[in-house]
Amino acid sequence: MDRRVAFFVSDGTGLTAETLGNAMLSQFQGVEFDTMTLPYILSEDATRQAIAKINEAADRYGNCPIVFSSLVDRGHRDLLGRSRAVILDVFQAFMGPLEQELGVRSSLKVGQSHAIHDPEAYRLRIEAVHFALDNDDGVGWRHHYEKADLILVGLPQAGKTPTSLYLALQYGLFVANYPLTEQDIEDASLPEVLVPFQDKLFGLSMDPYRLALARQELAGDDLQGCCTDHCTQETEAARALFEFNQLPNMDVTKMSVEEISTRILALTGLKRRLQ
Amino acid sequence: MDRRVAFFVSDGTGLTAETLGNAMLSQFQGVEFDTMTLPYILSEDATRQAIAKINEAADRYGNCPIVFSSLVDRGHRDLLGRSRAVILDVFQAFMGPLEQELGVRSSLKVGQSHAIHDPEAYRLRIEAVHFALDNDDGVGWRHHYEKADLILVGLPQAGKTPTSLYLALQYGLFVANYPLTEQDIEDASLPEVLVPFQDKLFGLSMDPYRLALARQELAGDDLQGCCTDHCTQETEAARALFEFNQLPNMDVTKMSVEEISTRILALTGLKRRLQ
Repeated sequence: MDRRVAFFVSDGTGLTAETLGNAMLSQFQGVEFDTMTLPYILSEDATRQAIAKINEAADRYGNCPIVFSSLVDRGHRDLLGRSRAVILDVFQAFMGPLEQELGVRSSLKVGQSHAIHDPEAYRLRIEAVHFALDNDDGVGWRHHYEKADLILVGLPQAGKTPTSLYLALQYGLFVANYPLTEQDIEDASLPEVLVPFQDKLFGLSMDPYRLALARQELAGDDLQGCCTDHCTQETEAARALFEFNQLPNMDVTKMSVEEISTRILALTGLKRRLQ
Repeated sequence: MDRRVAFFVSDGTGLTAETLGNAMLSQFQGVEFDTMTLPYILSEDATRQAIAKINEAADRYGNCPIVFSSLVDRGHRDLLGRSRAVILDVFQAFMGPLEQELGVRSSLKVGQSHAIHDPEAYRLRIEAVHFALDNDDGVGWRHHYEKADLILVGLPQAGKTPTSLYLALQYGLFVANYPLTEQDIEDASLPEVLVPFQDKLFGLSMDPYRLALARQELAGDDLQGCCTDHCTQETEAARALFEFNQLPNMDVTKMSVEEISTRILALTGLKRRLQ
C-alpha cells in the first residue's frame, strides 16, 4: 500500500484543517496516511520550523507530503508554499468567491474560529457538561429532567454517556440519561419517572453482541450478566418498550458518537444552543 | 449590518462543512450570519428538499445564500448547483489536486469521515470518557493516576472537567483532574498524591475575576467563598505552586475548550490516541 504523510497546518487549534483534511483523505482508501497537526503557527520562525518538518518528511517518505493549510497570514502562506509539498490552502480556495459575493474583504485575522473565547458560550458549555454529569446513568435520584433538552433512554452501555457529553460540549445541549433497569424491562412499561417528559425521550439500542462486548470490556474480570443471550433478551425488550411507547429511537451499533449525536438532532429537530 | 444565511450541506454528519464554513465566515466580521446545517442528504429527494430550503431563504433574506457543501455524489452536487446560492464545494476544490498527486481516483463514497464506526476507536473513546468521569474533581480517593496520560491540576472551576472530557472524546486521552484544595493552597507544596506523577501534571489557572464569576454561576444562590479577593489569593497561591514545582501551566482565561486542549497537546508533546 502507498504510504503518505499529511500535515494539517494552522495558526490556531488546527481543527479546521484537520477536519477538512481527514474528510478528504478518507476518500482514498488505497493509500495509508500518517497525519501530523502543526497548530499555532503564528510567526515566520514557526512557519520555517513547520517547513523543516514537512521537508524532512518528504525525504523520509520518498514522496511528496500533502499539506492542508488554514493559515491566514499571507506572508506565512507564501513561505509555506516553498516547502516540498502539495499545499491545499483553505483560504486560497474559498476566500476569493466569498469576498466577491459578500462585497467585503475578509479581516484576515488569525485565530478567528475555534480559539474564540466567547464567555457566554463557554459558560453554556460548562453548564451543559455539568448537567450531563449530574444527570448521568445511575444518579437518577437527583435528576433534573425538567431542565433537560433531551433524555436518552437505553440499556446500560448502549452509548448514552458519551453521546450526552458530546451534545453538551459541541452544541451546549442539556442532555440527561436514563438507563433502563432489569425492573423496567420486566415491567415492560415506560418508567414512571419518565412519563411526564415523554416528548423529550429518545431511545438508543445496540446490537446485542456489541452490547455484550461493551459490557465485558467495561467490567474487565468482574463479569456480570453480560452474556449475549441475556443482552439479546434485554435488547428485544427495550426495543419493544420504545415502540410501544412511541419513543423515537435508533440502533446505534455502527455509529460514531458524532453520527449518533447529529442524527438525533436531525430526527428530533432539536435546536442546538451553540452553533 | 449585512445579514446573510449560510447553509452547511452534507451527506454525513455535516461536521466537515460546518467546521470549514464557520472558519471562513468568522473572517467577515461586518456581516451577520444565520447558519443552518442540512446533514444526511443522501438522495435526490433529500437534495431537492435542501434546494427548496436554500431558495426559500434566498427569497426571505433578499440576497444570495452561501452554501458550504461536502456532498460527494456527483449527481447530487450538480443538482445542488442549480439552487440560487453561492456554492463552495469542498470536493470540487480539493479532490482534483489530491487525485493528481496521489495518482489514484478517490472512492467518492459518502459518509467516509465522521460517520465511520471504528469499533476500536469507539471503545477507546468510551474508555477515555469513563476514565475522565471516574477521575474527575472530588473523586480523588478512587483515582487511577497511574493509568492517566495527563493530570490537570487547578482550582475548582478553572476549566479542568470540560477539558478532560474534550481530550477524551476528541483524542481518546486518559485525563484525570486534581482540584487544589484550601489545604493544598495553605501547604504551598505539591499534594503528596501527585508527587509520583510529576511528569503527567499540567496546571490550569484563570483570571480571579473570571474564576469568581464561574463559581458564582455554578453556585447560584448558594454562594460560598467566591468573592474576587478570595479568588485572587487562591489564584496567586496556585500559580506560585505551579512555578515552584516546575509544572507546565497556562492561563486559560480567554481560551475555548478547544484551544486549551490543543495548546496542552502542543506544549506537552502528548500524543493523541485517536487521530
